[in-house]
Amino acid sequence: MSFHEELKQWSRQVDDALNDYLPPADAYPATIHEAMRYSVFAGGKRLRPILVLAAAKAVGGSTDKVMPVACALELIHTYSLVHDDLPAMDNDDFRRGRPTSHKVYGEAMAILTGDALLTIAFELIARCGEQCPAEAVNRVTLEIAQAAGSRGLIGGQVVDLLSENKQIEAPVLEYIHRHKTGALFRAAVRAGAILGGATAVQLEALTTYAEQMGLAFQIKDDLLDIEGDETKIGKPVGSDVKNKKVTYPSLYGLEKAREMAAAAAREATEALKIFGAEAEFLRSMMHFIINRDH
Amino acid sequence: MSFHEELKQWSRQVDDALNDYLPPADAYPATIHEAMRYSVFAGGKRLRPILVLAAAKAVGGSTDKVMPVACALELIHTYSLVHDDLPAMDNDDFRRGRPTSHKVYGEAMAILTGDALLTIAFELIARCGEQCPAEAVNRVTLEIAQAAGSRGLIGGQVVDLLSENKQIEAPVLEYIHRHKTGALFRAAVRAGAILGGATAVQLEALTTYAEQMGLAFQIKDDLLDIEGDETKIGKPVGSDVKNKKVTYPSLYGLEKAREMAAAAAREATEALKIFGAEAEFLRSMMHFIINRDH
Repeated sequence: MSFHEELKQWSRQVDDALNDYLPPADAYPATIHEAMRYSVFAGGKRLRPILVLAAAKAVGGSTDKVMPVACALELIHTYSLVHDDLPAMDNDDFRRGRPTSHKVYGEAMAILTGDALLTIAFELIARCGEQCPAEAVNRVTLEIAQAAGSRGLIGGQVVDLLSENKQIEAPVLEYIHRHKTGALFRAAVRAGAILGGATAVQLEALTTYAEQMGLAFQIKDDLLDIEGDETKIGKPVGSDVKNKKVTYPSLYGLEKAREMAAAAAREATEALKIFGAEAEFLRSMMHFIINRDH
Repeated sequence: MSFHEELKQWSRQVDDALNDYLPPADAYPATIHEAMRYSVFAGGKRLRPILVLAAAKAVGGSTDKVMPVACALELIHTYSLVHDDLPAMDNDDFRRGRPTSHKVYGEAMAILTGDALLTIAFELIARCGEQCPAEAVNRVTLEIAQAAGSRGLIGGQVVDLLSENKQIEAPVLEYIHRHKTGALFRAAVRAGAILGGATAVQLEALTTYAEQMGLAFQIKDDLLDIEGDETKIGKPVGSDVKNKKVTYPSLYGLEKAREMAAAAAREATEALKIFGAEAEFLRSMMHFIINRDH
């Protein structure tokens, strides 16, 4: 199977699993279950869950068994988007070309929808205990909670918020990205590896991969905002400049930012050298992320 | 030790543990860690964590070992208050006589603070795995996530929100309370019992206790809004009537509501008959809840 076929297949499997795991849209109280589904099935790339599956596969683990945790990562990502879009936060009316949750369901329901997505994520992680060793599930719960918490994802969001309209320095920009985006990528890869039975050496290699890949992903995101095709990225090109957002290109220049993304991608790939064909998907994934056009 | 001495001692132990478990107020990014502490140390009664400890004790378990889960329940309760108070939700400027989180830190930070409190709760539950059997910790993670989720606490909040300014019927009122308040009480007692090593019979008895106690607690809350002393309950007496909120007294009348609370308290106590002195605290707790004046 080619990388793109496998990517598509996993993405479909994740969608099916999310559909199974989420309460039906008509489960009482229906409004929130509809709202949860509205945001979860909004056309995401499912990168985080696919990283969980791919990491489990790289260490010889079962992708089926880690599926609840894979979906949990996507739900945490989705909750963070729903809350980020709120009027009190980024105040975005559209995401991926569709009205955001609070535009459709109102602000109160959007807050509760985010809360519910975050909560069900931990329910799914715990459910993994039915098929994975309980100790490993506990460890993964801990790591994901830390990655999503006030010294992870939320911490990045806080610093981002406090940096609005300010000229920030490189260490702050790095903090924001390492936490807002990087922490969940890292947790996804590590969760798949831990549940898949990784050795310490494998886990370390995959952690380096995830960290460098997260960095490359973020710089690429910044680059797409300048060089991308509006119809593909789903938001106006140049919105970072318009919003006076500090980005890698604004801080380092376009040329240097491109170099930094390429260097991170190289380091990510380099970290995988202890693996054979079982990590081919992760190698292609890095290639895909650095070359994507949206 | 008298019940009140023990209650005070446990409440102090919970406060100390929360202080230990929460990131220091100056941990980067400081704003959110300050905000988390501001709401957690706002003078709550610590009922939920104390129920975890008391249930563990009733089945002969260690109260020390369940402390992280006890604190997790308080953090989930606190997050739900922070989000409930938001302008888009109940729009409350004061809670327990102090300005609410969004009045002090702004709306965006209050949303993130609630998110962070919910997230760290699951971190603490997972940490319990260091001292409790991993399978039990997994089960407790699952139950608490369900109790806090869209078919638990959040579900109750959703129905409450959708019922605003509507004349609701008894089953809807019951749904709201069983989920908004009852679910966490039930999860607290069950978590303490499960981690403390309860038998199936003990767990069932304690579940009945928790359910009836939660009902009595809620009816008592409604009664206090009518009969209470403003300086003690920390909000204006009669605010439910003013806000046209449907309550047990408004639906059943004062007399009948009082009877219902007493009956629930009796059933809660009755459920404890299989226990001896080790459940004395839970018995006194029921008595305390039904006779409290704030």
